[in-house]
Amino acid sequence: MISWNNLDTIKAYDELGKVSKVNLAEVMSGENGANRVKNYSVPMAAGMAYNYATKQVDDEVLAALAKLAEETQLVEKYEALYNGEVINTGEKRLVLHQMTRGQLGDAVVADGVDKRDFYVGEQKKIAEFANKVHNGEITNAAGEKFTTVVQIGIGGSDLGPRAMYLALENWAKVNNTFKMEAKFISNVDPDDAAAVLHTIDVAHSIFVLVSKSGTTLETLTNESFVKDALKNAGLNPSKHMIAVTSETSPLAKSDDYLAAFFMDDYIGGRFSSTSAVGGAVLSLAFGPEVFAQFLDGAAEADKTATNSDIKKNPAMLDALIGVYERNILGYQTTAVLPYSQGLSRFPAHLQQLDMESNGKSVNRFGEKVNYVTGPVIFGEPGTNGQHSFYQLLHQGTDIIPLQFVGFKNNQMGSDVVIENSTSQQKLCANVVAQIVAFACGKKDDNANKNFEGGRPSSIIIGEQLNPASLGALLAHFENKVMFQGFVWNVNSFDQEGVQLGKVLAKKVLAHDTDGALKVYSDLLNI
Amino acid sequence: MISWNNLDTIKAYDELGKVSKVNLAEVMSGENGANRVKNYSVPMAAGMAYNYATKQVDDEVLAALAKLAEETQLVEKYEALYNGEVINTGEKRLVLHQMTRGQLGDAVVADGVDKRDFYVGEQKKIAEFANKVHNGEITNAAGEKFTTVVQIGIGGSDLGPRAMYLALENWAKVNNTFKMEAKFISNVDPDDAAAVLHTIDVAHSIFVLVSKSGTTLETLTNESFVKDALKNAGLNPSKHMIAVTSETSPLAKSDDYLAAFFMDDYIGGRFSSTSAVGGAVLSLAFGPEVFAQFLDGAAEADKTATNSDIKKNPAMLDALIGVYERNILGYQTTAVLPYSQGLSRFPAHLQQLDMESNGKSVNRFGEKVNYVTGPVIFGEPGTNGQHSFYQLLHQGTDIIPLQFVGFKNNQMGSDVVIENSTSQQKLCANVVAQIVAFACGKKDDNANKNFEGGRPSSIIIGEQLNPASLGALLAHFENKVMFQGFVWNVNSFDQEGVQLGKVLAKKVLAHDTDGALKVYSDLLNI
Repeated sequence: MISWNNLDTIKAYDELGKVSKVNLAEVMSGENGANRVKNYSVPMAAGMAYNYATKQVDDEVLAALAKLAEETQLVEKYEALYNGEVINTGEKRLVLHQMTRGQLGDAVVADGVDKRDFYVGEQKKIAEFANKVHNGEITNAAGEKFTTVVQIGIGGSDLGPRAMYLALENWAKVNNTFKMEAKFISNVDPDDAAAVLHTIDVAHSIFVLVSKSGTTLETLTNESFVKDALKNAGLNPSKHMIAVTSETSPLAKSDDYLAAFFMDDYIGGRFSSTSAVGGAVLSLAFGPEVFAQFLDGAAEADKTATNSDIKKNPAMLDALIGVYERNILGYQTTAVLPYSQGLSRFPAHLQQLDMESNGKSVNRFGEKVNYVTGPVIFGEPGTNGQHSFYQLLHQGTDIIPLQFVGFKNNQMGSDVVIENSTSQQKLCANVVAQIVAFACGKKDDNANKNFEGGRPSSIIIGEQLNPASLGALLAHFENKVMFQGFVWNVNSFDQEGVQLGKVLAKKVLAHDTDGALKVYSDLLNI
Repeated sequence: MISWNNLDTIKAYDELGKVSKVNLAEVMSGENGANRVKNYSVPMAAGMAYNYATKQVDDEVLAALAKLAEETQLVEKYEALYNGEVINTGEKRLVLHQMTRGQLGDAVVADGVDKRDFYVGEQKKIAEFANKVHNGEITNAAGEKFTTVVQIGIGGSDLGPRAMYLALENWAKVNNTFKMEAKFISNVDPDDAAAVLHTIDVAHSIFVLVSKSGTTLETLTNESFVKDALKNAGLNPSKHMIAVTSETSPLAKSDDYLAAFFMDDYIGGRFSSTSAVGGAVLSLAFGPEVFAQFLDGAAEADKTATNSDIKKNPAMLDALIGVYERNILGYQTTAVLPYSQGLSRFPAHLQQLDMESNGKSVNRFGEKVNYVTGPVIFGEPGTNGQHSFYQLLHQGTDIIPLQFVGFKNNQMGSDVVIENSTSQQKLCANVVAQIVAFACGKKDDNANKNFEGGRPSSIIIGEQLNPASLGALLAHFENKVMFQGFVWNVNSFDQEGVQLGKVLAKKVLAHDTDGALKVYSDLLNI
């Protein structure tokens, strides 16, 4: 029997707070530090590993975290989720994004259909469509092949698919699976769409309109913008556009689209990269086989997340350490630092995934909680960040936990030897050096050159950023965020906090304003 | 007589802490809120305004901030800086980035030359070079015009110039000043350079190597990468590369470059966008006249920052409110949210500018301080962020102060009317709505739909993002960061925190490691 309780009522949480704190610089020195790096590592899907040697934990803290996992029934709650319970209680919805890449438990029937069958069916429809575009069965009116795919969407319909595209673009190019260039239009700022339209050949472009409800104002506005451009070029928009939406949306059966592919209410936008939302653009860009490998990596990570042993469940362990840092150690922010140029926009995706899911002040029953919840997430790729904000991370007055990601091999194969090492070796040497510098610091009599250390991090290490490891990485963080939501007893799957701004923006556009809102509207000439 | 004192020794700081706190939701309601929006506004350079109506300040707090400004001698310290005092005490250097765009005080002679003459001289050299490239006097070996410029640099040699390029790219296209496309290579990850080289025609590309010392390992590595690519294409690298460096660097007099343009030790990387570091790439991309307009906007902002009245000095006021939020109200993070797609990478630049300058734990005399200093800075353009992390900003358990930026007009002119409003109106309506939603909130009996409000923000409002307003915006934040450094009594112009990682990375590459560092090196196959 599952029970949902606030974190501050959990006995194991109280005990966790009483465990002696770890002096990171001390435990990471010498042979002990070497042993931690060897032992504090959990295998992940797709051959990766989650190494937490430089987190402020030891066996005692880990034992307390294991008790917390047990008492808060994390694995049982995940089981309930993938078996089809209504976990998104606020919106009274199932939470089924995992089912787009596998089935971990019971068949789940909703809206009269087996949902696994439904998701697989949409994937097949997309694969067939993509293959026809690639082999020239579906072309523009002149009978010429499409060369570019443009996703029109915002938030979850943009950040995840865009980050995944950028992560695999160069991999696909060197592995000869690159089919079409992808572009993305998201912002309601008209300069966004105008700039993208400037760089493409609309006559050879296919546009993917993504909106679950079919009513997202930014997306519909950008659709009109694109339709105007197509018409101005003498083209028929309905021959250049497909829709990704829910079956009940106004877009679903419209003649305005070449085809429509479906998702449903059980997949939140920020969890939709493995649904048709990511599937259409990624299958068109790289081919359905690459998208399938991406799903397989995610499925393997989902399976790993079912393990009740925290030392065999990297997502759960990562989640618990994050809660320890946030609620016991009092750290407010986490930086995500991938040492891989392909992951340049992965931090922006995690920022949405994490902050929109767990940036809540009420529990799943709508009661205010008395503890802090989701942290602020930000990040940029290393080594770039080293030459930017790392100064504060090393010597600032606040401690910011760090999530590193590194791969043994680069994606494109090209490299150059300077001063006896390749660029890839320099990249890896830098991430290794940073981890140790943050954890251990270095004493110096000149306080300005002194590094206190004690700054915690973890690193995910993989062979190479490819479709499978990317899928595993994505699912790892989705599951981490889910587990943290369970610990904090919040509903990670709604986003009521975005509503008020929408309501007020409509009032402004209708000139139905007074007070401050009216004066601001005047200042901006609305 | 200037005296440098820690913030916790300042009488006005003690008094500031005792002033009654402002209930933001309360003061922003009704007519009072409307009046605040009208009155709490300071003119900025280039026709912009800094509106702080939704900050947690009132006339009493403002009076205390004015006293703080006076007691910490902010304007006098700025005056000392631009008159050539050694403000960067750690490195014993002058701080002269303002002098790249104007001269506010005395002539400053260093290294035997008048520094204003030196910077203007480099600008002229760059302008002549750029004009020759544009008019075909300088070409590739085949006598064909260069079409692309590629900046090779990292940190301040990358983030600022890249953000400025993206901010003006579309403006230049519609205003017919667009000369050459610019690309940027920064990361030592070999996939970064390889990917850029994949997208350009090297035979028609000119590369700008940027390194003040001429020894930045990432940059020299990427230079080799590019030289290999040029040689493989049968081209002579020295006919395709220029250098931006200091006169004393090994690159300065090398035959490997078509030309060399100079900066000096008095301009830190993160403050170098208006020096030759930004000047070469931006003059080549948009023409020297556009770069000159950008400098003029910055110069005007610098002039504004000399005013001792906080209500006429937006950078100083912004800085003081930031200190109030950080040290008295206890907020750790600030989000930068430009409602302009052109400013997509401006937050990344501010992240470096702010966090690298003020992320310090010691004062300018090398003594540990007992108060918090620079905040974490992150951000993405609105409206994208609204569909991403705004959930946490509205309803999360921590309060994150917000810096909005909005423009009345878009850059490209194209627009579309949907539901009786243009995209530009929707964009502006959204920023206005968000400001009020954050400040005022909205009561709801359902706690999940309740918005407490009281979340502070400010907005910078301009007519349009163009060279002059961009320069003014850049200089505003440079000056804000400088003033905050003065208040915190830190040296904002060094970055000792980046050194340890460099030292350890060299050890790893030399296989001179033991303990944890050795095990990590093995895990990453170095």
